[in-house]
Amino acid sequence: MRKVGKNSVAFDNVFLWSYANSASIKEHNGPLGAYIDYCFPNLYCDGKTWEDAEMNLLRKAWEISLTKGNLKVDDIGIAIGGDLNNQIAVTSYLMQEYDVPFMGVYGACSTATLSLINGSMMVDGGYDGYVACLTSSHNSTSERQFRYPTEYGIKRTPSVTSTVTGAGVGILSNRQTKIKITKATLGKVINSTLKDASDMGRAMAPAAASTLKQHFDDFGIDENDYDLIVTGDLSNYGSKVFLDILKELSINLGNKYKDSGLMIYDIKKQDVVAGGSGCACISVVMYGYLSYLLKTKKLKKILVIATGALLNPVMTFQGKEIPGIAHAVALEVWDE
Amino acid sequence: MRKVGKNSVAFDNVFLWSYANSASIKEHNGPLGAYIDYCFPNLYCDGKTWEDAEMNLLRKAWEISLTKGNLKVDDIGIAIGGDLNNQIAVTSYLMQEYDVPFMGVYGACSTATLSLINGSMMVDGGYDGYVACLTSSHNSTSERQFRYPTEYGIKRTPSVTSTVTGAGVGILSNRQTKIKITKATLGKVINSTLKDASDMGRAMAPAAASTLKQHFDDFGIDENDYDLIVTGDLSNYGSKVFLDILKELSINLGNKYKDSGLMIYDIKKQDVVAGGSGCACISVVMYGYLSYLLKTKKLKKILVIATGALLNPVMTFQGKEIPGIAHAVALEVWDE
Repeated sequence: MRKVGKNSVAFDNVFLWSYANSASIKEHNGPLGAYIDYCFPNLYCDGKTWEDAEMNLLRKAWEISLTKGNLKVDDIGIAIGGDLNNQIAVTSYLMQEYDVPFMGVYGACSTATLSLINGSMMVDGGYDGYVACLTSSHNSTSERQFRYPTEYGIKRTPSVTSTVTGAGVGILSNRQTKIKITKATLGKVINSTLKDASDMGRAMAPAAASTLKQHFDDFGIDENDYDLIVTGDLSNYGSKVFLDILKELSINLGNKYKDSGLMIYDIKKQDVVAGGSGCACISVVMYGYLSYLLKTKKLKKILVIATGALLNPVMTFQGKEIPGIAHAVALEVWDE
Repeated sequence: MRKVGKNSVAFDNVFLWSYANSASIKEHNGPLGAYIDYCFPNLYCDGKTWEDAEMNLLRKAWEISLTKGNLKVDDIGIAIGGDLNNQIAVTSYLMQEYDVPFMGVYGACSTATLSLINGSMMVDGGYDGYVACLTSSHNSTSERQFRYPTEYGIKRTPSVTSTVTGAGVGILSNRQTKIKITKATLGKVINSTLKDASDMGRAMAPAAASTLKQHFDDFGIDENDYDLIVTGDLSNYGSKVFLDILKELSINLGNKYKDSGLMIYDIKKQDVVAGGSGCACISVVMYGYLSYLLKTKKLKKILVIATGALLNPVMTFQGKEIPGIAHAVALEVWDE
């Protein structure tokens, strides 16, 4: 591992050993439904509470990732992960069931890349074991906690996004596979100047732009270095602001840019307002469709920028603005 | 960095470059008051809200740690940290003020060692930069969130602990200092079988015992390898259960064991019921008194086991038991 520029690191020897995702019915019916390993037929996901439902989603992704990687639970050296529930409770409670050291992380919806970068730093730094990176979110646990319980039937504003019900797990190793983790840029916390919990896409856009600019600067590269650049969950409103900010910075991503919030759902046909959001949004897309693109060599280099709104409802009520953060990680085809 | 045994790592080249702590009046009046860098005269800590108060505590510890280390903000490569507030909001909001990459972690009151181990893995893994590890807690933000707002004046049960109002920051480097980070054992999540949020000491005791046993097993050592073994915030009730469990495992720590919840306050004279708790409990003790003991060579090897109750009030209401976790890190005098 080498520190590069101000906020970045380059990796020499860390690979995506195995990966899996799970989701519910709306994601199954979306454009990327074919790239989801397991779909529950409804939001309950075989649970009695929304928290149980989210734990079941995460357990599925975790178990499938082990199976796909031909690993037993005992083979995992460290599990790193988190979710949106207060105190990352879903991940913590799930990890009770397994005899695996657990490191909790929280980056709101940026947790998928936060955990992946953290794990990559360990494996590339010489930790000789498998490191699993876990993330989940559930529409009903999230909406209740950050906005209103879905049962209220609150009228949604046009900028509001729909939390993805799903989970994703990636397992890292220093043993070579077809997908290599090559670069990462850690985000700093950026004040969005916005206070509306129903407009998180726009609240996270400045952080995403800041991290992308830093990534280009630190490595001395530009958009031509990637086949695809994917943000986490800026969705309809946020991704426009993201591109506007980049324009001011003289960065033009052209047709290389996509946002997973607009990939996972068809916002014209599905009832998701501005698009998808939540930890699982980028996680389900990255450990499904994006990994498929790389594994089949349809694309060779993808930069994933997961975005998080570091919102606390109490502090929002106190009049504080919503901070955003974004962590970027580059995944490349490894062709030895 | 080398993986050792099942859950541990050994470090070759990571040092505590600088450290600082801050607290409020009750901690100042406690037995370790002389080892606190900055004390606010009351719980408001110059803030208008409890959240602002906690941010001010963390800012003080952060700024003093930079000054003591002769560092500027720009010198910090990565900040790793978290606190007890939902979505680790105090740390995230504070980090908005600085141009430093931020990685959020959450391990409840085990966050002090979680961040220190995480940072040590990076530095020892080849990350050539300073890594700052931040933690804070505030009595009033915590009591309101996990139990009741302090203004209610709820009658406290004998097992309840008092959240420490304070913060601690440690800055890691591969440049040699007098205190070296040598070993770490990551904890797994342990179901406490307890459901009472007013009895977190006992809920965390099994996790602390599990991590200590694993640490001894992984490295093939015992209590004779340390001058002092300090747990995070088991306090009066929890530390007794901890010692009981160890007895069953044929481990006898003798007079080498202390709990920071019983070190930071005088439970006979101060109104703290069962003792201190919170992220800042072990953090203030570790980045104050314990570091002093090492720096002045009064002790040479200390094992710090920070303990966390991975509690979520919603899931406790749903009837779920409280999971515990504990992460252990060894600090040693480095005498070149």
